[in-house]
Amino acid sequence: MDRIAHPGLRAKEMSAEDAAALIRPGHNVGMSGFTGAAYPKAVPVALAKQIGAAHAAGQDFRIGVWTGASTAPELDGELALVDGVDLRMPYQSDPETRKRINEGSMNYCDIHLSHVAPTVWQGFFGRLDTAVVEVAGIDEHGDLIPASSVGNNKTWLDIADQVILEVNEWHSLELLGMHDIYYGTELPPNRVPIPMTHPADRIGQTTLRVDPEKVVAVVRTNAPDRNSTLKPVDDISKQIAGHFLEFLEHQVKVGRIPKNLLPLQSGVGNIANAVLAGLDSGPFRNIYAYTEVIQDGMVDLLDSGTVAKASATAFSLSPPAAERMNERAAEYREKIILRPQEISNHPEVIRRLGVIACNGMVEADIYGNVNSTHVMGTRIMNGIGGSGDFARNSLISCFVSPSTAKGGDISVIVPMASHVDHTEHDVSAIATEWGLADLRGLSPKKRAKKIIDTCAHPDFRPALHEYFEWAQKVSKAQHTPHDLSKALGWHQRFLDEGTMHS
Amino acid sequence: MDRIAHPGLRAKEMSAEDAAALIRPGHNVGMSGFTGAAYPKAVPVALAKQIGAAHAAGQDFRIGVWTGASTAPELDGELALVDGVDLRMPYQSDPETRKRINEGSMNYCDIHLSHVAPTVWQGFFGRLDTAVVEVAGIDEHGDLIPASSVGNNKTWLDIADQVILEVNEWHSLELLGMHDIYYGTELPPNRVPIPMTHPADRIGQTTLRVDPEKVVAVVRTNAPDRNSTLKPVDDISKQIAGHFLEFLEHQVKVGRIPKNLLPLQSGVGNIANAVLAGLDSGPFRNIYAYTEVIQDGMVDLLDSGTVAKASATAFSLSPPAAERMNERAAEYREKIILRPQEISNHPEVIRRLGVIACNGMVEADIYGNVNSTHVMGTRIMNGIGGSGDFARNSLISCFVSPSTAKGGDISVIVPMASHVDHTEHDVSAIATEWGLADLRGLSPKKRAKKIIDTCAHPDFRPALHEYFEWAQKVSKAQHTPHDLSKALGWHQRFLDEGTMHS
Repeated sequence: MDRIAHPGLRAKEMSAEDAAALIRPGHNVGMSGFTGAAYPKAVPVALAKQIGAAHAAGQDFRIGVWTGASTAPELDGELALVDGVDLRMPYQSDPETRKRINEGSMNYCDIHLSHVAPTVWQGFFGRLDTAVVEVAGIDEHGDLIPASSVGNNKTWLDIADQVILEVNEWHSLELLGMHDIYYGTELPPNRVPIPMTHPADRIGQTTLRVDPEKVVAVVRTNAPDRNSTLKPVDDISKQIAGHFLEFLEHQVKVGRIPKNLLPLQSGVGNIANAVLAGLDSGPFRNIYAYTEVIQDGMVDLLDSGTVAKASATAFSLSPPAAERMNERAAEYREKIILRPQEISNHPEVIRRLGVIACNGMVEADIYGNVNSTHVMGTRIMNGIGGSGDFARNSLISCFVSPSTAKGGDISVIVPMASHVDHTEHDVSAIATEWGLADLRGLSPKKRAKKIIDTCAHPDFRPALHEYFEWAQKVSKAQHTPHDLSKALGWHQRFLDEGTMHS
Repeated sequence: MDRIAHPGLRAKEMSAEDAAALIRPGHNVGMSGFTGAAYPKAVPVALAKQIGAAHAAGQDFRIGVWTGASTAPELDGELALVDGVDLRMPYQSDPETRKRINEGSMNYCDIHLSHVAPTVWQGFFGRLDTAVVEVAGIDEHGDLIPASSVGNNKTWLDIADQVILEVNEWHSLELLGMHDIYYGTELPPNRVPIPMTHPADRIGQTTLRVDPEKVVAVVRTNAPDRNSTLKPVDDISKQIAGHFLEFLEHQVKVGRIPKNLLPLQSGVGNIANAVLAGLDSGPFRNIYAYTEVIQDGMVDLLDSGTVAKASATAFSLSPPAAERMNERAAEYREKIILRPQEISNHPEVIRRLGVIACNGMVEADIYGNVNSTHVMGTRIMNGIGGSGDFARNSLISCFVSPSTAKGGDISVIVPMASHVDHTEHDVSAIATEWGLADLRGLSPKKRAKKIIDTCAHPDFRPALHEYFEWAQKVSKAQHTPHDLSKALGWHQRFLDEGTMHS
């Protein structure tokens, strides 16, 4: 069968170069993509060449780039390299993009993933001129078979003035049936309850809608998603995962959560992978996941039956796992549900389900405030992503990191966070390789003692205790004692001397 | 009719002293009260005397005090004066209590009001030994007629081992029918959608349930609620309210919100009062309120018809307005709905309704991070209360304050907030008497310029610009430029020299 089964849309087939030429300077462009999954593979590359040529000819050519979350070098990388992006939102993790943002040559709006659709509907980033969306196919009615991520595709397709579709033959057409596209969200005063009470509930349709009249180009591609293979799980990640899993076992034992846990969310990366690996050898079965991204470890858990079903908005699979997904899509679509990020990250649903969230962090301070985004208070790493949607609304919200960075020169536990993304009110627990500090029900000074003694690297514990004692001595008030003249001194020392050690 | 219509409960009538004697050292006590409304008037005073006597006799006697929110001198004040409180949560505004917390002799857990019930159900503050709840009456079935606040009463009555009721004849019995007590909340995995799509929906019952077997004492009182009369609206509050209302008019004009706005939430105090007063002379009619507290100005708006109906969890009325409420309760119960704070502050409902929130703050920094709780980063004022529930989930979240404090020595707009309760991701707008900065869709540096030029006091603008320019010069990264060695320098200067001016 032809992947473009709708004759009217087949008639709009053209080259990536011709399609890219429909994107003009100053356009806001909504791209598909959430991690290196189902981002457009051809048009952004062609567009970057055209932008480069325009710049070489002395012409202005920059665009706004909106996505689901991070993408891949062919999108964020290529466009950043030619200085083609004026404003980027809502999340990125590309080295070139990050460099431009931190140089100050690219505007970046770092917003909660659940806020993206309502924010653009209201027009705060201007009009959406063009959508560039990768799909697995187009059916005879012109409906779109989604691919390996959903992200904000529904929103981009709905609101863009013109739509460019990339039909990527690399995706299995048997993905059809895996997705759950819910069309019931609205702006107030027309919002209604999201009709979901279980992570495996299906509440929408399997395809994405698009007005064929708005489609100005269809481009055929055949190229794999690009996600890096995770390193084998290291010892520190294993230790952190171990503390987290032990904590969950204890929560079950004291009757706070059911034996099959509550729906799990976890960030991407080595610690998350270690948690997933640890689950498979642990006592829990019939677990559900309500998360953003399905990585290799989750697929293993679905294979072994440890996880019954997983809800997410995207894959983030290594090349071999991605191939396996394509080969066995008809099997996995019974166990995996990919949803728009409006729903995967919806605060209402996360709170109702009582998600157990586990996310990485840049640093935490002794009182439990967490920095997820800014190194030394100024340099953005990636962005807040969905961590705020999950941290505020989950039943249990744990932040995890190795206790040190830069070969031991940075303590991840600091006197005062140099940037705050998750306040003391939203952090249930903090875990490093040294242990997990359960902060629930504790006042600030009790948190401080527990975080220092449980989570900080022993090399930094004396200095943290010294700060905490000193702060109590000099602080005018004792609810959250600080010496403001020294509170950020560890960061400043790192900037001046390359180490937080004194 | 006897206010205690249930014979079994009438048989448990006793003096406040005898009832207080049922509260033992180490008890956790869940008290009614949200602002100075429907807090128990007699038992806490008697208990404070017994605690004072125990201390005089060299005995330990301290308790945990849990409430709806702030209360009044007869509760927080009396118990703090005798050093009777070991742990206080979730919100307070009492001078004696605040003093003990900031001296370090009272533990205080400052948590989102929407998190209180789930947190105590899970036992993070220990067992609830005693509930002391003021009501307007007890019907023949033993059901309780709620009074001028609901707060966490439903939760305390449900989970406490023993219950002490104060039946206060000062409240009108015609309040019966005003309340909407929803019994459908649960811990996960048993949560279901809150069945509300309009601020005036009634989803529960008019009375509170209690197991008569658990009631160990019923105390009759006749004493008024105690809320201070607000000062007449001052010019600065009027100016701030004017900017906020102009902003709302503009939002209506550009079609972002309906002509009758979206449900309004506003904090308590002079600026909120000025906003309410301004609404009455403005263009909006048929407004709904979905808020925590009903203050005098809201009653005026209900009288004039500007506000159609108001949903809240408590009154916070001046003595004359409280008298009027008691006299005309049968009329107001058609227009006012008082709910448990689980519902008045429920993130799911706030987001669905698209609330427009307006809350006070201690300070905001140039990038839009807001401090609601800590003066100079260490001294707690009151607490976060419901501001986080509303800020994260409202369609529009505005923080307001005069631009200076302490006679001009403190700038409310600072280089870096000394404590963060609402991150840059959660603040739609900031307003002072100088103007309102709409921050939606702006990257950090654009926010900085707008906040400084719109909101800061002109006396502080040059120094703020100077900091911002300097930060861009020395900062290693330009996403959120800071000089960490100076970022908290304004606060330190105030601590050292009594002024933020250099």
